[in-house]
Parts: sequence; structure tokens; C-alpha cells
Amino acid sequence: MDDKRFKKGLELLEKYNPDSFNNLKENLDVIAPDLAKFVVEFPYGDIYSRPGLDMKTREMITVAALTAMGTAEMQLKSHIKGALNAGCSKEEIVEIILQMAVYAGFPAAINGIKAAKEVFEGSSE
Amino acid sequence: MDDKRFKKGLELLEKYNPDSFNNLKENLDVIAPDLAKFVVEFPYGDIYSRPGLDMKTREMITVAALTAMGTAEMQLKSHIKGALNAGCSKEEIVEIILQMAVYAGFPAAINGIKAAKEVFEGSSE
Amino acid sequence: MDDKRFKKGLELLEKYNPDSFNNLKENLDVIAPDLAKFVVEFPYGDIYSRPGLDMKTREMITVAALTAMGTAEMQLKSHIKGALNAGCSKEEIVEIILQMAVYAGFPAAINGIKAAKEVFEGSSE
Amino acid sequence: MDDKRFKKGLELLEKYNPDSFNNLKENLDVIAPDLAKFVVEFPYGDIYSRPGLDMKTREMITVAALTAMGTAEMQLKSHIKGALNAGCSKEEIVEIILQMAVYAGFPAAINGIKAAKEVFEGSSE
Amino acid sequence: MDDKRFKKGLELLEKYNPDSFNNLKENLDVIAPDLAKFVVEFPYGDIYSRPGLDMKTREMITVAALTAMGTAEMQLKSHIKGALNAGCSKEEIVEIILQMAVYAGFPAAINGIKAAKEVFEGSSE
Amino acid sequence: MDDKRFKKGLELLEKYNPDSFNNLKENLDVIAPDLAKFVVEFPYGDIYSRPGLDMKTREMITVAALTAMGTAEMQLKSHIKGALNAGCSKEEIVEIILQMAVYAGFPAAINGIKAAKEVFEGSSE
Repeated sequence: MDDKRFKKGLELLEKYNPDSFNNLKENLDVIAPDLAKFVVEFPYGDIYSRPGLDMKTREMITVAALTAMGTAEMQLKSHIKGALNAGCSKEEIVEIILQMAVYAGFPAAINGIKAAKEVFEGSSE
Repeated sequence: MDDKRFKKGLELLEKYNPDSFNNLKENLDVIAPDLAKFVVEFPYGDIYSRPGLDMKTREMITVAALTAMGTAEMQLKSHIKGALNAGCSKEEIVEIILQMAVYAGFPAAINGIKAAKEVFEGSSE
Repeated sequence: MDDKRFKKGLELLEKYNPDSFNNLKENLDVIAPDLAKFVVEFPYGDIYSRPGLDMKTREMITVAALTAMGTAEMQLKSHIKGALNAGCSKEEIVEIILQMAVYAGFPAAINGIKAAKEVFEGSSE
Repeated sequence: MDDKRFKKGLELLEKYNPDSFNNLKENLDVIAPDLAKFVVEFPYGDIYSRPGLDMKTREMITVAALTAMGTAEMQLKSHIKGALNAGCSKEEIVEIILQMAVYAGFPAAINGIKAAKEVFEGSSE
Repeated sequence: MDDKRFKKGLELLEKYNPDSFNNLKENLDVIAPDLAKFVVEFPYGDIYSRPGLDMKTREMITVAALTAMGTAEMQLKSHIKGALNAGCSKEEIVEIILQMAVYAGFPAAINGIKAAKEVFEGSSE
Repeated sequence: MDDKRFKKGLELLEKYNPDSFNNLKENLDVIAPDLAKFVVEFPYGDIYSRPGLDMKTREMITVAALTAMGTAEMQLKSHIKGALNAGCSKEEIVEIILQMAVYAGFPAAINGIKAAKEVFEGSSE
């Protein structure tokens, strides 16, 4: 049942990405409530809840991919927080982003580090 | 004659994307007047003025492409307005952007919806 | 229920993209059966089956996005067929791809036309 | 007049990119003759014919951009030939592509070198 | 000393990506020997040899990034092998690629699975 | 020796991109000092210091690539300054960016011109 997917997804989203959840509510709910629902159901309900990879690894590969793509700063920051929430250390996050210089170029890595710096400074408040 | 292309293009640009036209004048005219001229002549004079697709469809596919690319927020907003001006409903625009989650990922769709939200809120003033 | 999403999705996929369906079975079923299932459920079961846009428009915006992205030749060809199956004319498909020169550059448009040419020649057998 | 743009463009295209010209005729003429016409008129008639940069520099920056984008192998090869035709040495082309490792990552540079290798081997026949 | 970076890098490259090493020699050595040298020194000598992440995690995040970028099929396959060599299971690789559907769209994930399928079939010979 | 690469790199970076150097110190030094070190050593120490292309050409192709990629506004601005410092005229920079409309689309070129405008206005203070 979709209801089960939604429940499972919401649980994970609230636990690892509370900012994302609030952001979704604020930005999507008014004009695209179904997108907010799909985000809960598909990425979280269908994918992140699968047993094949632990949550820390899932957040690490997402940080890598979003850094390499370079087109989703808001989501990158949100998943840097998610990675921290899943037990990733700041040093590991920096290391992941740094490695992206090899595959997506230095600007992608530098912009990724800037995003991490802003998250780390915010989260140390 | 280029003059004819320019005239045809300007007419379409002013009608569907008045913001874009002003933005071009403000941003490009001082240091790159020829780029402003090319924008009028090629996209509008040569392409949008062709009979093969109606203006609404042209704006819809542009909104789809710019959402998927994720590198042109200003132009995406401008074409969301263009789509509204060409007779597209807000619901249709949301639906186009939402579908892009399938082809370009959820961050692209979420950022597209954010852009649409800002345009819709601005245009409802 | 997921079963309902799967059924709805499969119906649309088989009708508009029979090649895609076979390709999914062949390529994904052995090593990633869940991805095949997700393709049926999310893009087709959740998105394409929504009432907000007709199937022809859905396929047109997908052709635009995939042409602009330039990283998914196989899927572009599959959706050019999907567009034809949804009532899009060859002339309209060419026109959509051509317009992408404006937003994603001439190489993207030229490669899109090459893909369309190969589909049109294959489909006219 | 468009006729003048077409003439100017065709002259440059035939001189620097004879392969491209033939490829356009073969691939685009049947199903998208207007795209072939636009390629002659806009990139060559409007842009490459401008006095601000010499032809060698124009081809060099195009080789850089297409290597970095990584989505247009055919066009990259065509412009590597164009660069050679405009007086660029093989060593300079290799150097341009190599520098792209910094901005777009090593895979982009390695794929660019592969393309150059194939052009150089072909052109030395 | 660069010599030390090269040695360290070569050791890792030969151990985890023997194909990549041979491919570099074959494709780059003739026309761009310095790029081959840089690949050994920077990605492997400087980055992969750092203590902050284990080799398995490094290969996993690379598989994620290259799947999401969608512009480096050869390198994706090479790092799928690298991931296997570093102790990643086939199921984990499939799971990483599948998750990329969320961030880079279904075509990127489907093309990634196709690449994995070809590597798995080749590696099971 | 790495020390030699670092020295050579730092000399070039400080001469052509003083802003970049300060930005690196400010943004990267606290959380990713090794990335700052790698930027000095690899792009500047290894690549820009090579004899195959003069500094003006190196900056021109970088401006082209970053405009086309559209994901690195900060770095594009930094290299527009670098190009000016290496003897490139404002007219040449505008011409490079304008040409990118052909390969990466008009939005990429328009955003590039906006970046150039901001640099030119700032640098004329």
C-alpha cells in the first residue's frame, strides 16, 4: 500500500533530513503537494528504506553525486546534514567532496567544500 | 533580410517575455549588444516564429528543458512567465516540472517548483 | 496499493513504449529487477497516468528534456517512438529537437536529429 | 540579408570543417534541412565570421568547451579537425584537452584525448 | 617527491584498476603521456592514497558520481571493476546505481545498470 | 619535489588570480586545507606552468569551458579576471562567451555575459 510507503519514507526523512522535510512542506505543499508526497514515497519509502546499503553509505554516495552534478546546492547541503545525522564524520564528508575534484573538476569540489563549510558552521551553533 | 528576422523576433519576445526583453536590454546592451540582437533574431526571429508548433507548446518544452538542465534559473523563471502568457495554466506548468523528476532527478524538479512558486507569487501581486 | 500503480504503469508503458518495456526486461530484469519495477511504478504508474497533461504533451516534453540533457540516447530514441505512438507527427518531433539548439546548443540539437532520423528510418520499415 | 549570412557561413564551414559540412548534408538534410541551414547561418555566418577573435582561437575555445561538456563526441572530433585546419598544432590541442581535467574532471580529459587520438590517426592516413 | 606520488599511485591503480592502467598506457601514452602520468599521480597518488576513507568507500562514491554524471561510460565500467576489487558486492553496486535514479533521473540509473551488467557478465567469464 | 610544484603554482596563482588565492585561503583553509594545497599544486603547479600554451590562451579556454558548463559562477568570474590579467581584452572575453551560445545554448552565454559584466564593473572601480 502507498500508505505504508509514505509512512516508512516519512520516518526516514524526518529522522535524517528534518530540514528537508520542513523545506518540502514550506516550498512544495502549496503549489505541488504531490511532489512532496512523491519525495516521501519514492526516494525515502522505496529507496532509502531498502536493506542493501546502510543509511550512512546512502548519504555518502548522495553527497558525492550532488557535488559532482553541481546543480543542486540546497539538496547538497541537506544531504551533508543527512550524512552527519547518519553517523558520517565531518572529515569523511570533506574527503568525499575532495575526491570529486578528480571526476567532476576542481570547481565542483571547491563549491562542495563551501556548502559543507556553511553546514558545519550552522550545525555547530 | 536580418531586419525582418529582428522585427518578427522582437514582436514575439515583447509579447511573451517582456521581462526577458527588459533584462536583455539592461544586462547585455552595455557590454554585449550583439548577443541581445542574436537572442531576438535566432531564438525568436528564426525558431519561435516557425509554424510547426504553437507558442504554448514551445514554451512548455522550454520549461521542461530548462528544469532538466538545472543551470539557468533566471531563464527558467522567464519562460514560466512566457508559458503563462502563451495560455499555459499554473497546473500544467507544475505538471511539466514534476515530470522532470523522472528524467533529471528530484532535485531538478524541486528547484523547478521553487522557481515556479516565486513566479506565481510574483505574478499574483 | 503498489499493485495498482504497477498495473496502471505497465498498461501505459506497453502501449506507448513497447521497446522500452522489452529493453527493461532484457537489461534490468536479471541484475536489477527492482529498477524495472520502479520504472513501471513511478514514471508510468505515478506520473504519466496523472490527468494534468495528455500523453502527447508528456512525450513531447520528455523528448525536449532528453535532447537538451544529451546523456541518454537510448531513452531519447525510446521516447521519440513514444511521442509517435501518442499522436505526435514527425514534423513536430523535429521541431521540438530543433528548438533545443537555443537552450542546449547546436550539438545537442544535431545529435537529437540524428536519433530521430534513426528512429524514423527504423519505424518506416 | 540571410543569403549573405548563409554564403559567409558556408565559406567558413567548408574551409575549416569540410567533414561537418558533409555530415550535415547527410544527416540533417533529409529530415531537418532547416537545422543544416541554421548551422551554416548562425554559428558560421553570424559568430565565426566576426572579427573579434581569429579562427584558430575560435576553434581552440570550442575544443575546450566540447571536451568539458562531454556530451558531443562527434562535434568534438569535427572541431579538433577544424582546429588543425585553422593552424593549431597537435601539441596545442592535446594541451587544451589536458587542461580540462582541472575544470571538468579526468574522465572528460581522457575521453577528449581518445577523440583526439582517433582524429590524429585518421588525419595522418 | 613526485616520484613517491607516482609510485604510491601506480601501486593503487594496478591493484584496483588494472584495466584502467592498461587502457591509459594504450590510449594516452602515445599522444598524451603526461595525462597518464597525472592520472597516476593526482587521483591515485594524492587522493585515493589518503587515509580518510577506505578503498571500498572511495570506489563506491566514484561509481555513484559517474552514474549521476552520465558522461563517462568507460570510466564507470572501470570503477565498477575497481569497486568489486575493493570488496564491494555486486548487490551493493546495483543498489548504489539504483539510488542515482533519485538524484540524476531514471535514464542515468538505467544506463548505469547496463554498464554494470556488461562488467558483471565480463567478469564472470 | 612537491615543494617545487607548490612554489611554481603559488607564483602563477598569485599573479593571475589573486582573488582566487584569497578565496581559497578563506574558504578552504579551515575545513579543507589539502584542497587549497591541491589547487595550487595541480592546476597551477602542474598544468598552467606547462610550456605548451601561453597564459592568455589558458585563461581563454577556461573562460569558454566554465561558461559552457554553467555550474561554476564564482570560478568563471575568477577566471575572467585571470584572463584580463593575462592580457585578454574585455572585447575578447565577451566574444568567447558569446560563441558559447552555439555549443551550450543561449542561457549559458547570457549568464556568462552577466558574470563578465559584474567583473568588468567591479574591476573598473
